[in-house]
Amino acid sequence: MTASLDQDPVVAFLGLGLISGSLAGALKASQWGAEIIAWGPRAPSLERGQALGLIDRFSLDLAEVINEADLIVIGAPPVATAKLLPEVLAHAAQGKQPVVTDMASIKGAIVDAAQPFYPKFVPGHPIAGSENSGVQAANSDLFQGREVILTPVEGTDSTAIAAVEALWVTAGARVTQMSVAEHDAALAASSHMPHMVAYALTAMLGGHVLEPMKHGGGALRDMTRIAGSDPIMWRDIALANRDAILEAMDAVSREHDQLRALIAERDGAALEALFSDCRGLRRGHDGILNPMLKNEESSA
Amino acid sequence: MTASLDQDPVVAFLGLGLISGSLAGALKASQWGAEIIAWGPRAPSLERGQALGLIDRFSLDLAEVINEADLIVIGAPPVATAKLLPEVLAHAAQGKQPVVTDMASIKGAIVDAAQPFYPKFVPGHPIAGSENSGVQAANSDLFQGREVILTPVEGTDSTAIAAVEALWVTAGARVTQMSVAEHDAALAASSHMPHMVAYALTAMLGGHVLEPMKHGGGALRDMTRIAGSDPIMWRDIALANRDAILEAMDAVSREHDQLRALIAERDGAALEALFSDCRGLRRGHDGILNPMLKNEESSA
Repeated sequence: MTASLDQDPVVAFLGLGLISGSLAGALKASQWGAEIIAWGPRAPSLERGQALGLIDRFSLDLAEVINEADLIVIGAPPVATAKLLPEVLAHAAQGKQPVVTDMASIKGAIVDAAQPFYPKFVPGHPIAGSENSGVQAANSDLFQGREVILTPVEGTDSTAIAAVEALWVTAGARVTQMSVAEHDAALAASSHMPHMVAYALTAMLGGHVLEPMKHGGGALRDMTRIAGSDPIMWRDIALANRDAILEAMDAVSREHDQLRALIAERDGAALEALFSDCRGLRRGHDGILNPMLKNEESSA
Repeated sequence: MTASLDQDPVVAFLGLGLISGSLAGALKASQWGAEIIAWGPRAPSLERGQALGLIDRFSLDLAEVINEADLIVIGAPPVATAKLLPEVLAHAAQGKQPVVTDMASIKGAIVDAAQPFYPKFVPGHPIAGSENSGVQAANSDLFQGREVILTPVEGTDSTAIAAVEALWVTAGARVTQMSVAEHDAALAASSHMPHMVAYALTAMLGGHVLEPMKHGGGALRDMTRIAGSDPIMWRDIALANRDAILEAMDAVSREHDQLRALIAERDGAALEALFSDCRGLRRGHDGILNPMLKNEESSA
């Protein structure tokens, strides 16, 4: 896989859910000879992951798993990742100094929690997921062509960065780097804000006397899909990236109000120009947003 | 097909684009022996439709096509439909009294334009479409399992309603009826509002200094897809259903502001409750929103 890890490293997943299970599955499906082990607080998910062939074996003993691993992937939502990190890093520093990475969608809270400083911890975030959850929904193609953002800080070990990058490339992803603050602001706009928009739209539909959701087509299907996401995970994201999300919400409000004004004033020319700009912007990003080059089904 | 039409009726499409072409294709793919003809203001789309096997033949002479038809489907956006209707209804009334229907996504403006009153005109709206346009994007499966709403008025001929219903059932759709006002309010919420939300979100992303669209995943793909729709069609819809859309926009604004307040106040319990309600609502409508029972791909 990479010069920075042994020929046949032990990769350990701490927590096994949809995202970590998908990465485990992608590694198993690759030609890479890593042994995939996992730890979790309870057996059922781990047993399911083993039955699905995503991991080779598991243990409920965190220290034991950390001590065996060459590369550790924390597979948990932001709040749980932040809670687990100090213990993981302390064990790692005392043992054979494995590379550690995480997959949480917010990096500020994670980097703050990564104490004491451990140079082989590489904060990461795969831009892929699902409104479903649990290891049974794992999909080894989940990362094909998707971006994984690494947010190393001052002092992060460059061989550790290279090892995490190689891990993700093996799973089919493309890896970029940015600062923690840039990541959290960009993701507030590109991921967290779409969820908030979907929630506001869905809440409106739920309160509407005509039950308009009964008359939805493909537009409504797409615009409400992520409102079916895990409520606890999104509660935590909304709180953990609060300031950047509030800023993005205010920016969307301004666009909403401007659009409302154009419709109220019946300004057809300005509406057409705005809608054309949006079409150009969306089409200009088709390749990034549809990396599998699937034919999107028709809908409205 | 139905007792209300001859064994082998002539079905005429006035205008041939994505939606009408898809219906023509669905009729050709069915066992029904109708002859499918078309009129349009210019030859190229009609020639393409004929080459694709969607229609049997076409003419550029509107009166000639109307006089031949047993069932006329106006396949045009709302504004063009409203403009064409008086001439079509006048010709129809003078000829062999064909059934006439339309597919415009707003019914108030259409019913207002349907003068002089012609009892065999049945206003209709298939809840299906695409961000693509043109007859080359026609897809004969477009209406499978989708709802088609008919909005007959006082005096609409019941055999004409039955004929239009049978037409859509042949194409795989399920047919419902509601009043013009209910249709326009429900669709403002279920279809027009999702588009306005996608436009506001896309406009925000386009103006963001970090170019967050470059870091989009499946959530952003879905939440901006319809921002790629035809700008002129959506300009016209925004203007034609102005009042109902403004009302829906204000309702979404209220939900947006309430959500913003919960995040600002760090009210985790209320956020989780709201997100849970949204998930329940979305999942309760999965069957309607995903009539093909496709496995939605994973994304975030």
